[in-house]
Amino acid sequence: MTPASRPSTLHALGEFGLIRDLHKHCHTPGSEVIQGIGDDAAILRTSPKESLLASTDLAIEGVHFDLAFESLQDVGYRTAVANISDIAAMGGIPKFLLVALAIPPSYSIHNVRALYQGFKKPCRQYNISLVGGDTSTSKSGLFLCLTILGHVRANRALTRQGAKVGDRVYVTGTLGDSKAGLQILQRQRKQKKTTTHQPYETFLKKRHLRPIPRLAIGQHLSQGRLAHAAIDVSDGLSGDIHHLCHASRVGVELWATHLPISRQCHAYAAAHRCNPIDIALEGGEDYELLFTIDPRNHGRVTELSHMLKTTMTCIGEIKPKPFGLRLKLEDGINRKIMRQSYDHFSTKP
Amino acid sequence: MTPASRPSTLHALGEFGLIRDLHKHCHTPGSEVIQGIGDDAAILRTSPKESLLASTDLAIEGVHFDLAFESLQDVGYRTAVANISDIAAMGGIPKFLLVALAIPPSYSIHNVRALYQGFKKPCRQYNISLVGGDTSTSKSGLFLCLTILGHVRANRALTRQGAKVGDRVYVTGTLGDSKAGLQILQRQRKQKKTTTHQPYETFLKKRHLRPIPRLAIGQHLSQGRLAHAAIDVSDGLSGDIHHLCHASRVGVELWATHLPISRQCHAYAAAHRCNPIDIALEGGEDYELLFTIDPRNHGRVTELSHMLKTTMTCIGEIKPKPFGLRLKLEDGINRKIMRQSYDHFSTKP
Repeated sequence: MTPASRPSTLHALGEFGLIRDLHKHCHTPGSEVIQGIGDDAAILRTSPKESLLASTDLAIEGVHFDLAFESLQDVGYRTAVANISDIAAMGGIPKFLLVALAIPPSYSIHNVRALYQGFKKPCRQYNISLVGGDTSTSKSGLFLCLTILGHVRANRALTRQGAKVGDRVYVTGTLGDSKAGLQILQRQRKQKKTTTHQPYETFLKKRHLRPIPRLAIGQHLSQGRLAHAAIDVSDGLSGDIHHLCHASRVGVELWATHLPISRQCHAYAAAHRCNPIDIALEGGEDYELLFTIDPRNHGRVTELSHMLKTTMTCIGEIKPKPFGLRLKLEDGINRKIMRQSYDHFSTKP
Repeated sequence: MTPASRPSTLHALGEFGLIRDLHKHCHTPGSEVIQGIGDDAAILRTSPKESLLASTDLAIEGVHFDLAFESLQDVGYRTAVANISDIAAMGGIPKFLLVALAIPPSYSIHNVRALYQGFKKPCRQYNISLVGGDTSTSKSGLFLCLTILGHVRANRALTRQGAKVGDRVYVTGTLGDSKAGLQILQRQRKQKKTTTHQPYETFLKKRHLRPIPRLAIGQHLSQGRLAHAAIDVSDGLSGDIHHLCHASRVGVELWATHLPISRQCHAYAAAHRCNPIDIALEGGEDYELLFTIDPRNHGRVTELSHMLKTTMTCIGEIKPKPFGLRLKLEDGINRKIMRQSYDHFSTKP
């Protein structure tokens, strides 16, 4: 592309280019908007002591989910958790959920109730009230739009912006399980029912269908002013580290040998002859938290990890922007991290 | 239908039956939810002095809009106003808008920007910040979901619930213009470009494409504790008076000869040999406010009407529930008000 040419198709711009374009052209007047478009949730000043967090998420049949291998309850559950996870990434407490549904005319009330059972399960678990919504018919498939509202102490919201050169990069739990689980579900749909399933498959499928939003961890990172920057791993590590570095105007070195990969994901990768590191980098919808801290606070992260009984692994270091985004491999070779996560408007990785 | 049988299809339940069903099965824990599902917006306790208002609205190509006779900017504008009007109906001040878009792959960035111009116009006018959203591809048409957040003084939100027997029913502006405008747009699409257009058509089309949310009126009705109950006319007078009476557990007598109908709508009705009263009753998307007040406050409504330079017409009286919902015609005959507004899941009026 020559410097004079400008992409005018969504395909050329890509999803994140589009978001940046709309952000640029979006005037947000007033001092009540602490953070508008461009983070996991908007941060809005509503009282001197607390900020309101708000985030909206789409889930579209054939784009975000496939009813051929997951139930309506699964779809409801996953969509609600994706939305709740945006509040976790900001260090907030989720409070209220609004649900908009466009429903194919063939659906029965039982179908819609099954979907609602999915929404309500995490709502009950995390004490979130389902307070509103909208319904319509859909001429194509099922279409969901969820909006979550939460709050966070004033000036304590975690954002993608604060990473500093020298910070250590941490991630909670394990990476890639959800993607491996999705691939298993897709394969099993085509297999005969008599095929023997491997023990690791049940674990990975559950990780895809029943993800856990890291609310308590986000809240501790925010309240203790521990994290400089944070994001949830929804698009995949390779994509989300790009978002974080872009917002913080820094580079990063991630260490391939340190990426936390479950033994079940290792078993899956071995069985299907693929590299578990690639699954960990590319796999979205893990909803783990990716955050950066001052290296002197390593001990506090270890304490938090013990207290919350959740692994938190140091996977790299923040570098100056010119360093770029690089992955250090086992043999010491340093390769560029390509953004390989899903882009709605681009076929290119 | 026998009393023992229960509808299980969405068609039999209808849109409002579905909303009631979901409401019934939706637990909203905690005292922070003042009003959940079932009004124009949820009312949420966020501080002792103020409540948060939140409402989400879908707009789907082929269901809510048709790009054959309106532009993307029109769609953006109308969808934003529909959402803002929910805050007007609660007597609140709109503050923040979140926009979720599912976009057909054929769209250019110029198309998406045109849509955003539509959102941004009323946002600028009413000082609303566009603070977040989500984007995705759509495999069928354009799909929008807007969420508006606003606030209102604690215990001052207008709801559908407070209408009292003996209250007078008022409506702002004129009714039916938007429906007449829509019918003109639909007809003109099929006509040759050389067809001469009537002067009233321009007015009515504008009323459909550029509706006005009645924010100042709602705020005055709320601050002055003037209205007992309120709703915006989005589904049509016949549908919205049902919502208000159902929530307030009352009946109503509306007076056909008092319904405010513009001279342009009268001219349209005469030209197309239809009854302007039917257009006023059935026509949705006027976004006028329908409210009830103590009859002793008639003078205060007249003052407000002068101050805000907006007509407010007394169109009926709240009756006890057994009276039902009835329309008094010119000849004194009293007929039942059928809910003739649009229902997403029912083909029956």
